[in-house]
Amino acid sequence: MDGSEVTVMGWILTVRGHGNISFVTLRDKNGDIPIVAKKGDCPDELREKLSVLKAHSSIAVVGKVKSSEKAPTGFEIIPTDLRVFSDVEKIPPFEPLAKTVKNIDTRLEVRPIDLRRKTLQHIFNVRSDVLKSIRDYFYKEEFTEINTPKMIATATEGGAALFAIFYYNKEAFLAQSPQLYKEQLTMSFEKVFEIGPIFRAEPSRTNRHLAEAISIDLEEAFVDYNDVMNRIENIIKISLNSVIDYAKNNPDAEFVIPQIPDSIPRYSYDDLVEKMQKAGAKTEWGDDLYPSNLKKNRCRRILFYQRLAFRS
Amino acid sequence: MDGSEVTVMGWILTVRGHGNISFVTLRDKNGDIPIVAKKGDCPDELREKLSVLKAHSSIAVVGKVKSSEKAPTGFEIIPTDLRVFSDVEKIPPFEPLAKTVKNIDTRLEVRPIDLRRKTLQHIFNVRSDVLKSIRDYFYKEEFTEINTPKMIATATEGGAALFAIFYYNKEAFLAQSPQLYKEQLTMSFEKVFEIGPIFRAEPSRTNRHLAEAISIDLEEAFVDYNDVMNRIENIIKISLNSVIDYAKNNPDAEFVIPQIPDSIPRYSYDDLVEKMQKAGAKTEWGDDLYPSNLKKNRCRRILFYQRLAFRS
Repeated sequence: MDGSEVTVMGWILTVRGHGNISFVTLRDKNGDIPIVAKKGDCPDELREKLSVLKAHSSIAVVGKVKSSEKAPTGFEIIPTDLRVFSDVEKIPPFEPLAKTVKNIDTRLEVRPIDLRRKTLQHIFNVRSDVLKSIRDYFYKEEFTEINTPKMIATATEGGAALFAIFYYNKEAFLAQSPQLYKEQLTMSFEKVFEIGPIFRAEPSRTNRHLAEAISIDLEEAFVDYNDVMNRIENIIKISLNSVIDYAKNNPDAEFVIPQIPDSIPRYSYDDLVEKMQKAGAKTEWGDDLYPSNLKKNRCRRILFYQRLAFRS
Repeated sequence: MDGSEVTVMGWILTVRGHGNISFVTLRDKNGDIPIVAKKGDCPDELREKLSVLKAHSSIAVVGKVKSSEKAPTGFEIIPTDLRVFSDVEKIPPFEPLAKTVKNIDTRLEVRPIDLRRKTLQHIFNVRSDVLKSIRDYFYKEEFTEINTPKMIATATEGGAALFAIFYYNKEAFLAQSPQLYKEQLTMSFEKVFEIGPIFRAEPSRTNRHLAEAISIDLEEAFVDYNDVMNRIENIIKISLNSVIDYAKNNPDAEFVIPQIPDSIPRYSYDDLVEKMQKAGAKTEWGDDLYPSNLKKNRCRRILFYQRLAFRS
């Protein structure tokens, strides 16, 4: 593309320079583009305008591509025209290149700016990839995608932990799960899945509960619990492979990828209760497998898989 | 597969036969399977058990595949073992092969059975395909999939038409649209999309409003209204092509497919107001383009595209 005219749009990552030369790094969805405005190469007015722009300003640059050995991308742009869509009025409280920002409130106050940081870009983008890979698996396995009502008349799982809503002049609730709908729909479609929000008015005592979350839910007719475990194992592996692929293409993401054996170990409930009791947990047969108990001693590994299954 | 042993599971579409022979058609996700139980070919007890089963019962059959010129599938199954998962206790008020059932209440009372009818199977399945094709388009165009909160503190579009909820001990609302979130997220991700529920407490005066619906929403930075129209045109075409492909593979779906020109006509607001006024609608410049006005005379075609855009 050397010598060709291009228009690039994005936001400013850095501005450097002195008197006769300004370097601007423009960032967009696809990466960073160096803009080099040197006296004589471009209009003085443009160079001066560029040099006073602040990081995070949103601009368009028309210019000529010039191959450059110094630039990490292998090229730079010599600007011939500049348009400022929005100039920064207030400097954000952290640099766009900051790897970590300690104060969560500071971050949330300028969340869209916070989300421009590479670490967070990677989290959102890999999440998008993971969702795609899981849906592709469901499609490949001939599941029908469904969308079940989120405003419901009665609870689907127990009675507590429901958000009440005013449905016109009646009381209704937010769905905790697509459970009853998806079960019914297997009678018509055999294999169904839904990826959508669930709502649970639980006090958020653990890091596994949220008032609102996205659930990845499937239901299938003519299968037993072994088939269900196979599905979950497949989904965990597919999600992880999707993260591994992303990490390969984006080494700067610095993801820590857990190791998963080819066949994830399976335990019976009896075994786990016994394991927990031996590890000193006050668990009776019939109790839920609470993370607080699983955490004790030898059950950490089980908690790890349980979490993976939950988070997949 | 002639001669091989198979296990098939599904629900019974029809049972026919007399004394020495029973014909059962078993339907599953992938189609219909003829089971032929003839005296001498299979245990008497099994044949008798099969012959009294009612349509919609859920069963598993182990048997031998036998090629058959009479069967539409080219084969039938000679049963050697039968397992009944659930026998029908109450006969549904309509036949599984009924093309139309007039009473909507009758249908909704046994909705999972209603949804076994082919017409409805096709609607749900093509819907799943259309959603897939739209998402694939977004992924191809490098959009990031996002999920924005459905429980929000304030309205995103005007003040009315919100469902109020009890959020712990505060008042909150259900999101009418991901509007504000997706706009903010373009500052971080440039191109984002979300397919998820929206909630509008509007009285359902028109067939274009629902208390709860699935919205297909995208937002993009560095584009103008022409780019937006291009996106919508692409999404309409992709959705339609997905329906066309489905119809080709499922001729019994009998879909009526609208014709769409290569380039969908575009009108300015001024043009449309003038057109509507000429057609006798009481529209002033500044008014919304209400369907009731568009319906009059020459604007039917515009209404058609508007609806397509809405429904795509």
